[in-house]
Amino acid sequence: MSIVVQSIDRADPATVSGLAECGVATVHEAQGRKGLMLPYMRPIYPGAQVAGTAITVSIPPGDNWMIHVAVEQCREGDILVVAPTSPSEDGYFGDLLANSLQVRGVRALIIEAGVRDVRDLTAMKFPVWSKTISAQGTVKETLGSVNVPVVCAGMLVNPGDAIVADDDGVCVVRREEAAKVLEASRARIAKEEETRKRLVAGELGLDMYGMRDRLKAKGLKYV
Amino acid sequence: MSIVVQSIDRADPATVSGLAECGVATVHEAQGRKGLMLPYMRPIYPGAQVAGTAITVSIPPGDNWMIHVAVEQCREGDILVVAPTSPSEDGYFGDLLANSLQVRGVRALIIEAGVRDVRDLTAMKFPVWSKTISAQGTVKETLGSVNVPVVCAGMLVNPGDAIVADDDGVCVVRREEAAKVLEASRARIAKEEETRKRLVAGELGLDMYGMRDRLKAKGLKYV
Amino acid sequence: MSIVVQSIDRADPATVSGLAECGVATVHEAQGRKGLMLPYMRPIYPGAQVAGTAITVSIPPGDNWMIHVAVEQCREGDILVVAPTSPSEDGYFGDLLANSLQVRGVRALIIEAGVRDVRDLTAMKFPVWSKTISAQGTVKETLGSVNVPVVCAGMLVNPGDAIVADDDGVCVVRREEAAKVLEASRARIAKEEETRKRLVAGELGLDMYGMRDRLKAKGLKYV
Amino acid sequence: MSIVVQSIDRADPATVSGLAECGVATVHEAQGRKGLMLPYMRPIYPGAQVAGTAITVSIPPGDNWMIHVAVEQCREGDILVVAPTSPSEDGYFGDLLANSLQVRGVRALIIEAGVRDVRDLTAMKFPVWSKTISAQGTVKETLGSVNVPVVCAGMLVNPGDAIVADDDGVCVVRREEAAKVLEASRARIAKEEETRKRLVAGELGLDMYGMRDRLKAKGLKYV
Amino acid sequence: MSIVVQSIDRADPATVSGLAECGVATVHEAQGRKGLMLPYMRPIYPGAQVAGTAITVSIPPGDNWMIHVAVEQCREGDILVVAPTSPSEDGYFGDLLANSLQVRGVRALIIEAGVRDVRDLTAMKFPVWSKTISAQGTVKETLGSVNVPVVCAGMLVNPGDAIVADDDGVCVVRREEAAKVLEASRARIAKEEETRKRLVAGELGLDMYGMRDRLKAKGLKYV
Amino acid sequence: MSIVVQSIDRADPATVSGLAECGVATVHEAQGRKGLMLPYMRPIYPGAQVAGTAITVSIPPGDNWMIHVAVEQCREGDILVVAPTSPSEDGYFGDLLANSLQVRGVRALIIEAGVRDVRDLTAMKFPVWSKTISAQGTVKETLGSVNVPVVCAGMLVNPGDAIVADDDGVCVVRREEAAKVLEASRARIAKEEETRKRLVAGELGLDMYGMRDRLKAKGLKYV
Repeated sequence: MSIVVQSIDRADPATVSGLAECGVATVHEAQGRKGLMLPYMRPIYPGAQVAGTAITVSIPPGDNWMIHVAVEQCREGDILVVAPTSPSEDGYFGDLLANSLQVRGVRALIIEAGVRDVRDLTAMKFPVWSKTISAQGTVKETLGSVNVPVVCAGMLVNPGDAIVADDDGVCVVRREEAAKVLEASRARIAKEEETRKRLVAGELGLDMYGMRDRLKAKGLKYV
Repeated sequence: MSIVVQSIDRADPATVSGLAECGVATVHEAQGRKGLMLPYMRPIYPGAQVAGTAITVSIPPGDNWMIHVAVEQCREGDILVVAPTSPSEDGYFGDLLANSLQVRGVRALIIEAGVRDVRDLTAMKFPVWSKTISAQGTVKETLGSVNVPVVCAGMLVNPGDAIVADDDGVCVVRREEAAKVLEASRARIAKEEETRKRLVAGELGLDMYGMRDRLKAKGLKYV
Repeated sequence: MSIVVQSIDRADPATVSGLAECGVATVHEAQGRKGLMLPYMRPIYPGAQVAGTAITVSIPPGDNWMIHVAVEQCREGDILVVAPTSPSEDGYFGDLLANSLQVRGVRALIIEAGVRDVRDLTAMKFPVWSKTISAQGTVKETLGSVNVPVVCAGMLVNPGDAIVADDDGVCVVRREEAAKVLEASRARIAKEEETRKRLVAGELGLDMYGMRDRLKAKGLKYV
Repeated sequence: MSIVVQSIDRADPATVSGLAECGVATVHEAQGRKGLMLPYMRPIYPGAQVAGTAITVSIPPGDNWMIHVAVEQCREGDILVVAPTSPSEDGYFGDLLANSLQVRGVRALIIEAGVRDVRDLTAMKFPVWSKTISAQGTVKETLGSVNVPVVCAGMLVNPGDAIVADDDGVCVVRREEAAKVLEASRARIAKEEETRKRLVAGELGLDMYGMRDRLKAKGLKYV
Repeated sequence: MSIVVQSIDRADPATVSGLAECGVATVHEAQGRKGLMLPYMRPIYPGAQVAGTAITVSIPPGDNWMIHVAVEQCREGDILVVAPTSPSEDGYFGDLLANSLQVRGVRALIIEAGVRDVRDLTAMKFPVWSKTISAQGTVKETLGSVNVPVVCAGMLVNPGDAIVADDDGVCVVRREEAAKVLEASRARIAKEEETRKRLVAGELGLDMYGMRDRLKAKGLKYV
Repeated sequence: MSIVVQSIDRADPATVSGLAECGVATVHEAQGRKGLMLPYMRPIYPGAQVAGTAITVSIPPGDNWMIHVAVEQCREGDILVVAPTSPSEDGYFGDLLANSLQVRGVRALIIEAGVRDVRDLTAMKFPVWSKTISAQGTVKETLGSVNVPVVCAGMLVNPGDAIVADDDGVCVVRREEAAKVLEASRARIAKEEETRKRLVAGELGLDMYGMRDRLKAKGLKYV
């Protein structure tokens, strides 16, 4: 059965913006090392760092019809998350669809498949994290669903969850945990700043983290 | 039997130049979504967009001798297309061969294998689409053929066919269809320009393409 | 048994610096086409070209504890080479560890696994060649060894061996062969300079390398 | 946070047995082509066809401690479903653990990682569907969770869901949908029996399914 | 444009039967080491060795409609060869379609995608060489073509070509070359029989093939 | 430089036979979880379990000449270990070479590449562990070396090392450690026999291994 869920709860916009500043590696650690999509999800150009609320699309292989349906459900601050029902590397998405999303304030596309027109998308500064780049066209024949839970690149994404993406990959934060994760992320950044200063001053992690006794107890031998 | 076919019919140069301007995604769509090589064929640097006429090389794994033979068959406006007879990721091609090709007016290399000296090739602005980047050297012991039909990255390429390549991948256009495909590509670009304006103005694809009735007929439910 | 070997013999620093200038493709050829790691080892940003002496780490999957141990063994001119005992794409290494290495004069990281904080690493100009990019965190529970022979991306690396890395990949040079390989590399560069001039002037490799007779003898037919 | 959920609701045993008889392809179709794990999940020996209720394990890479914890939670009719938090091909499971499971009436293991002692497991008739076969050992250092929702080979599995597995792969059926899916599966089998008779008698699917008009309408040409 | 070519020239049946007896490795060598599909094409059960004339199908990803169309074009002695227009691992084919093909005398299916119902297919002794095994269902929405040239697993296949398949893989023999290749294959088998007797008697290939002088001339050193 | 080392030290034959009985998983554990080749090394038929002393071959991609050279160096109880200098999936080895090896008492082939004639090899009971199965032929043009250290499927193999192989994969045991590893393997088997009895009697590993306190200390919660 193919459905479009029109009303969803989204993670708080200010919280989501805060997560964008923290970046993927920090957010992933701060929430207990969960939520990271598989590492084959790569940005089409380096340097983008964004966060947004997920509009999810479950879509057939080689058929991008439901992306057109999903556009209407998007609004300012969203990120479109597209997961095919079986693996596909076709080019579901190009610059025309990006125009439609950008005019609605959508911040990025996350797609476990292919994308095309990457030179135009780069020029438009519309960031995409995808499994591959491919010009291979798709059809518009078979339905899917919008705003249902999907598994994208190994991770469950619920509509309205926060998505954080940068050069390190893509991380999902549950809507209901977003505020707590932001707090933990900021605490982590503050702590890392301290650590960095000491490391740059030449202190060893072995000493700073107090690892030597535990290494010895585990049986490490220096020869 | 190893042969070098010295006289081939090439796609018309002006047509080929026109295809370069259209780019891979447009050309691929305009010819009915065919001709695209597998998406593991990636450019060694971003931003190049070229077209040329194919000089084909069927070559053994780990042996680049026939590339040296093929150089002599190349002329202004050609693109060298190299396909090993069994999969290989060795570095068949580097800056010296690129010098030879560039001085003859060859526009690019398409190779379903590895390439090396990529920093030099980038500096020279000699674009390469390859399966991988590898410094692994090759030998010169076994023959192959030049200007015979080859299957490169899943696509049949005949000598003289037009090859279009950009950041979206590599597309083959049959020599005898090139003019028709250029015409269709240009028509497509004109139409997309109109579409883009309306999308940027906020119109939905759902409405513009008249999709709502067909979606309803297929059974899509809004909840 | 987990050990840290504290005293190793390193390749000569001046020789290693010379190898850095020659680059991977040249060094690999000059030592008889050996030593190249598998081509999935890619730099996190283009353009870096380095050489250094190997500090090796044998490490469990998903556990980066021994990298902290290895930092203390590193000194000016070293390159850290990390090989998991079973395949892993986790993000073992980020900007904090890079700070520790950079302050000790370490020139690069070679890791047959994942790396994270790549935007920061790029900004710091700390080059990394890795199998993948991933924010996936690791634990600190299980020991490994430092400065034992390891197999990294298909190549045996002994502590103190010279490592050369650039956009073409990563090459290992045995410590005891480094001087001889540098000499051969420089001879090769000089010879290639001559070759390049003749090729740019339009001479064919077929003639310059005297290949025509041997091709004919092997049975190549021109048609 | 690492937890073991001790009390879960399981799909009805009789329903689950019914699903086992129907097999994966039928069940997958009957529930609307959803629930199939990625096709790299393969049986260690051909011919097994089972169904059971899922005991789920979220587990670190290269660490099988939580499988030992999970054994205690298993009972007659269960299937153990193990998903690492980052990709691993290590051999988490061998004949000793299989003895423990078999004595408790567990019907199979589904693991998105490696398994070992496959000759013994085959002799014991304890079926396993895994991503790979590997003797690579694991440690017991890091916690995970038992009976939490996991994503295994691209599919969300809740504790207590029905799992169906045979030579075609592994399919997940939601606990609450199991009865309905069994009914639809049986209907499908009955219908296929009819279809098979007509096909074996020589009738064409084109005629039996009434496809000719629709093919013509779509534009298919016979030449 | 989607077409069904109804009248094709087929390789001679007696010749094709002869090729089946020779097997893939021999036929591939006898025709000059060409025609072998990529090695990911594997049989669903061991021991089948067949040859037949190709009925080709170019088919969209995730859509098996054209297989139903192709059945009608098949006759005694054919092998169905199915190639998707973009990579797919869906299960296009199961036991019902196999019934249809078997009743028409079709000898095998070669498909660069997935197949399901493999237990039934094995019981029916209907051999399939496929890229994967998957129960993932397909739709019937988009046209393709029957009996046009296709590239399947890296090899060009023309309708009517001979296909040979066994545990070593799948090999294509051009229709017009089939008789010559059969002759060469039989000569090869006769010669190998002689060679085998001498090897089993303990003679070394080094001596029997007279390799020692050439190895010495190339520079091989015994130490 | 290409060499054939004619005189090597081999692991003790009785010890090697003992290792064969223990099998890969046990031997790998007994020597501290090292020595296992990558899991893509699979047997061409199930059920073989062997051990032997390594004759190593370093060989070019797509060229099997050096296997012919290596045959002469083999004797009763050896296993041939073949590693290409760059990745290859060609079919280097078939039934004729197997005849040569079998007549000399060689027990198996381990090859990080392709093998062919697998039906004949199965009938002959000559076991092969390979990366792939492929009929793709190779040439005899380029030298390599016999009985030098090689890296095969991620593991260093020295000539004369013990190789153990079964359905779980392939494991390398250093010649000088073979006796100690056999002793540890036998101790492990004895201990596992005890463990098995208790597990089959229904005892839990959690209790038998005394894991509960440590799990609690690490923070595991039962809910």
